[in-house]
Amino acid sequence: MIGFELLKTSSTGNARLGQITTANGIINTPVFMPVGTQATVKHVSHKILTELDAQIILGNTFHLYLRPGNKLIAQAGGIHNFMNWDKPVLTDSGGYQVYSLSEMRKISEEGVSFRSPVDGSKHFFSPEEATRIQQDIGADIIMAFDECTPYPCAFEYAEQSMKLTHRWLDRCMGYLKNGSGASQNQIFIPIVQGSTYTDLRKESALYVASKECPINAIGGLSVGEPAPIMYEMTENVTAYLPENKGRYLMGVGTPQNILECIDRGVDMFDCVLPTRNARHGHLYTKEGVINIKNAKWKNDFSPIDPDSTSDMSRNYSKAYLRHLFSVNEALGYQIASIHNLAFYLWLTSQARNQILQDRFKSWKGGIVDRLGQRL
Amino acid sequence: MIGFELLKTSSTGNARLGQITTANGIINTPVFMPVGTQATVKHVSHKILTELDAQIILGNTFHLYLRPGNKLIAQAGGIHNFMNWDKPVLTDSGGYQVYSLSEMRKISEEGVSFRSPVDGSKHFFSPEEATRIQQDIGADIIMAFDECTPYPCAFEYAEQSMKLTHRWLDRCMGYLKNGSGASQNQIFIPIVQGSTYTDLRKESALYVASKECPINAIGGLSVGEPAPIMYEMTENVTAYLPENKGRYLMGVGTPQNILECIDRGVDMFDCVLPTRNARHGHLYTKEGVINIKNAKWKNDFSPIDPDSTSDMSRNYSKAYLRHLFSVNEALGYQIASIHNLAFYLWLTSQARNQILQDRFKSWKGGIVDRLGQRL
Repeated sequence: MIGFELLKTSSTGNARLGQITTANGIINTPVFMPVGTQATVKHVSHKILTELDAQIILGNTFHLYLRPGNKLIAQAGGIHNFMNWDKPVLTDSGGYQVYSLSEMRKISEEGVSFRSPVDGSKHFFSPEEATRIQQDIGADIIMAFDECTPYPCAFEYAEQSMKLTHRWLDRCMGYLKNGSGASQNQIFIPIVQGSTYTDLRKESALYVASKECPINAIGGLSVGEPAPIMYEMTENVTAYLPENKGRYLMGVGTPQNILECIDRGVDMFDCVLPTRNARHGHLYTKEGVINIKNAKWKNDFSPIDPDSTSDMSRNYSKAYLRHLFSVNEALGYQIASIHNLAFYLWLTSQARNQILQDRFKSWKGGIVDRLGQRL
Repeated sequence: MIGFELLKTSSTGNARLGQITTANGIINTPVFMPVGTQATVKHVSHKILTELDAQIILGNTFHLYLRPGNKLIAQAGGIHNFMNWDKPVLTDSGGYQVYSLSEMRKISEEGVSFRSPVDGSKHFFSPEEATRIQQDIGADIIMAFDECTPYPCAFEYAEQSMKLTHRWLDRCMGYLKNGSGASQNQIFIPIVQGSTYTDLRKESALYVASKECPINAIGGLSVGEPAPIMYEMTENVTAYLPENKGRYLMGVGTPQNILECIDRGVDMFDCVLPTRNARHGHLYTKEGVINIKNAKWKNDFSPIDPDSTSDMSRNYSKAYLRHLFSVNEALGYQIASIHNLAFYLWLTSQARNQILQDRFKSWKGGIVDRLGQRL
């Protein structure tokens, strides 16, 4: 049945093993979801995503609404058909991107009006509209329309914003209840807000939990706050979210962040870091981070990473990849993007193995500090 | 043994089947060589080039000399090791690129001095130096250092330039004879020049033929002259080049150009068109050329090309590829580049089949006009 199932909880710490059943297949959790903003993971073909065992990819409603348009995607038979990806897809609600427009948007009780960064045209997202667009796009998992507060954020604003997010959540769910059958197969995820305030986070978590959705999300983190605050807030929220429901921490993070938050009971992650940092030459490995642009790799003819699950990283040398970056060749960004996704997907699959054997906490302890080292 | 072997000649027209044996494998001709200017075919991994059955790729000495440098490539154990490609490689001599610098270079009897377009530093290529650099790079097939005349070109300049190219050819060969053993496994190709003047082309072809190299090249075409002139010059030159030696027409061309020149007795081709035009959204197919940016493909959800040997072109839709181009996503350039290379490699493999069955001329007649149509 479509939804989340908790399979196992660690005896030390809160790492969990779970399974999400969607209309397009099963997702084993903890899971990292590569970000495919514009219906493509930048530089990476779907064949390679499949080879790397990506279980689900994420699309951004805001971008897809602007181009190619949700109606066109619906006409194609949904996002899976449109982008030639038959495994699960999650779309965000567009909230985060709309707020990122800052000067170009205006929030009211009704929703958010904004100007397109593509052509300056006027648009309006309400909770109902954002949900309807996500129905057109047809992802397996869709998100509530929320306000994502910046960091830092004054308590008063954070409180007002959280309450608005809660009212909008009710409107999204009201729309879904009264809406078309298109949502029947979609998992809807409400989002906890409350900035960095423990009380607000608790209030929001309890409110969201009361909706009894199969998966709950934690939003408004990884927006610039120090990692210890992010961990504290995550812990604070997971304590109030039901055990038997999935937990998605939005927009997180580094490999260390992911392991720390798995340890705090999170099941799902997405982040642009592996692909964006790849395009800047930052490569994640078990031993730490390589900046491939560094002169020290100039004549290092050893493999990029002999342990990678990406054959490119096992077969191409550091010197070759550095050359591609220094002459700005697309194959370099491709190799690096695939490398980092392979690493994130390997890391989460390792995490699942370790949880299965109830060794996650000690495994994490042995690996996490190394991950952030500069090589 | 390293060199060229003529296997079959058509009974109608001059299309030929041949085989080039190199230190890194055998090449069946007629062959199209994808261009990997900076030790990478733009956007395309070597794994995919292998899947598409690319038999050989071309590197540009000028670019490789500047970055990463021929010494670094030698240190890596040669271009094959450096770029992780174990099949044959051909390098040009750098002549064409140096001349393209126009304002930034100066030609003398001794060679060409030029400024690096990367950092403005001063450099000098002589025939000996260009050959030595190609030995460092270590391709299977290397080219003479020539002057490539522009189109149009006054007779007097074309004649002087051709004679200079001939003197430089002697210097390249003198250097190879007296040079290091590194060249033993490299096939050296001299180049016919003479612009669009029949007499000069004949004189140059006879001079080049007298060197008895395993393969001879035709340079100075596809530089802006009308196709009929290119065909006429090619015909004129192949008439004077020995039958039992390979023939390489440099920098040609469109699919139609390639079929017409195979029919005129050419065995080897290279061109940036398939990959460069791919990045502009021009896709070659059996039925003609698709401009994927055209609005007519906006909601065409049919495969890019159901007949393509690239699985991407069979699996992704025109509407999806058009979307990727309209939002400037790298995967679009990747899909299109692979599509066009797949088409060129399929076309030349078809040409080989047709020659084998002695049906090339009629097959070409049936297909060639369609290839240029706009879809």
